[in-house]
Amino acid sequence: MSVAKIDVVALDAARKRQDSLTKPQGSLGNLEDIACWFAARQGKEVPDMLRPHICVFAGDHGVVAEGVSAFPSVVTAEMLKNFAAGGAAINVLAKQNAASLTVVDVGVQSDVLTIEGIEHAKVRAGTGNITKEAAMTEWEYWQAVAVGEEQAEKAIADGANILVAGDMGIGNTTSSAALICELALFTPEEVVGRGTGVDDEAYQLKLKAVRCALQRAQRTPSKDAMRELGGLEIAAMAGYYRAAARLGVPILLDGFISAAAALAAVAWDARISGWMLATHVSQEKGHVLALNALGLEPLLDMNMRLGEGSGAALILPLLQSAIALHRDMANFESAGVSDKNEG
Amino acid sequence: MSVAKIDVVALDAARKRQDSLTKPQGSLGNLEDIACWFAARQGKEVPDMLRPHICVFAGDHGVVAEGVSAFPSVVTAEMLKNFAAGGAAINVLAKQNAASLTVVDVGVQSDVLTIEGIEHAKVRAGTGNITKEAAMTEWEYWQAVAVGEEQAEKAIADGANILVAGDMGIGNTTSSAALICELALFTPEEVVGRGTGVDDEAYQLKLKAVRCALQRAQRTPSKDAMRELGGLEIAAMAGYYRAAARLGVPILLDGFISAAAALAAVAWDARISGWMLATHVSQEKGHVLALNALGLEPLLDMNMRLGEGSGAALILPLLQSAIALHRDMANFESAGVSDKNEG
Repeated sequence: MSVAKIDVVALDAARKRQDSLTKPQGSLGNLEDIACWFAARQGKEVPDMLRPHICVFAGDHGVVAEGVSAFPSVVTAEMLKNFAAGGAAINVLAKQNAASLTVVDVGVQSDVLTIEGIEHAKVRAGTGNITKEAAMTEWEYWQAVAVGEEQAEKAIADGANILVAGDMGIGNTTSSAALICELALFTPEEVVGRGTGVDDEAYQLKLKAVRCALQRAQRTPSKDAMRELGGLEIAAMAGYYRAAARLGVPILLDGFISAAAALAAVAWDARISGWMLATHVSQEKGHVLALNALGLEPLLDMNMRLGEGSGAALILPLLQSAIALHRDMANFESAGVSDKNEG
Repeated sequence: MSVAKIDVVALDAARKRQDSLTKPQGSLGNLEDIACWFAARQGKEVPDMLRPHICVFAGDHGVVAEGVSAFPSVVTAEMLKNFAAGGAAINVLAKQNAASLTVVDVGVQSDVLTIEGIEHAKVRAGTGNITKEAAMTEWEYWQAVAVGEEQAEKAIADGANILVAGDMGIGNTTSSAALICELALFTPEEVVGRGTGVDDEAYQLKLKAVRCALQRAQRTPSKDAMRELGGLEIAAMAGYYRAAARLGVPILLDGFISAAAALAAVAWDARISGWMLATHVSQEKGHVLALNALGLEPLLDMNMRLGEGSGAALILPLLQSAIALHRDMANFESAGVSDKNEG
């Protein structure tokens, strides 16, 4: 597998351009870095405006049987209907921020074939209960990854130049916590959070489930964390990220699930992280640890914990503004503005 | 003077609506609070989308003679030309985020009457050097305030339902630092920062100028901090904020200068702060202290330090997204999604 190269010549040209614009050098803060980041990824001193695509991957989790979630598994399928009808948060955010949106069933437990307007690519009807068995077989794992890769390839062929993966899956903060512990070497106590809002009792059950799953996985010959502990939608997200990096298209990370998928992608090839921008840090406590392990700094902290790609979609206009400033501001010379005090 | 009341009935209705939407309660974090904040200010369970207006007030500062700035005073007038030609950061951000924009000369030192496309309302050609004399006379002070009030009234009459004030004025971080020390009871060491990027020598001169100005102001009979230490554009911003609060239209604060103007407005009437939303915290070190004194929490930290209203303009789409989510998401009942685990 290959990962596209980052263009350091374009990066250098973009930095020089920033310093010529009619503002004190550095005064646009993170916006200057963002514009230069895209210049280096697009290989252009002045990057194109963003044409974002969001793909929400859905799957269920056998570990819900351990009482780890505030919502029952049936909500995953119910939310697919809601996505198809345009009533979920990510629908509103995609529309508001001019992103195209696809919703894909990779591993929902219920039969959702009657729902129109979503992509049907079910690999398996929910994962195994990771406290007792592997989440999926080797074949299912690579199938799920391929579903994600195909979605990225298709979006890029259709003109997208920035990709967001969203997640929907009751129980997936438990699987993601286990993945982050395994891939980034943290303890369950450090990583496990309250997900969509479990109470103290469910929180203890969640902590116990993650401990059990990690212990079980250590006794198996498989070395693949995603296969043992992950989710079908999380595997698809990792595949989506890998294809984006291979094709040289930037990735916006979202929340906790997205960070787990990103760690799995980076375990394949560390260079993939060079194509990732961390958009926000969520309320889920292990998120910032996972981002640290990825070497990424989040841009926002809006206390969100929804998933679906919502945090990444929200930030799109800030990135567009950064590129628009880089592209459209006058420079000192052409505007006839004096640069610094010469007296 | 009066300040419009905040509608607690609409606030309560908006909170109830948030809890009915198809997401775990609280999972949209700050976005939920933002939508409810606007509901309470607009007096509607579902607030209207934002129609933003940005007004940039420009003025010069006599204290530049003390060597406090990295740029010469002439840059204020040069930047007015740049605003009129559409080449400054705020032009790009206003366009990108669908805000109308007005630029007003309240107190620029140079004659700028030949510049078309800006509003000419000069009260005085720059302030006095505040280390040696009052920034302005009593009459000039109230004239500058009136310029800001008129701009707010006009924007609201033209349909704006959210107002941003921006600033342009070489030397105005020095005046703003003095104002913040005086109004919020901090020391110059706590508040004075590097503005648009002064070196160590100029930083020491800036610190000294603020100390001198504060000592001089203590010996005058005038009790008005703005008149003694402020700026014509800062006084206009305070007037703009006061008129917005009187007319019941929300205000987005920007950076350091904006916070100084906000403190001056709040010194007139503490209730004005109820109409203010703090958008970002800048690199200027006293900014967070001033926001604390206002009782406000900034939403973003993008390491910006430009002024012009740029940080406030940048955040507009996040606020629009918060309102769109509040307005357009389906609720649990209508979408047929199960709310929490009943089993």
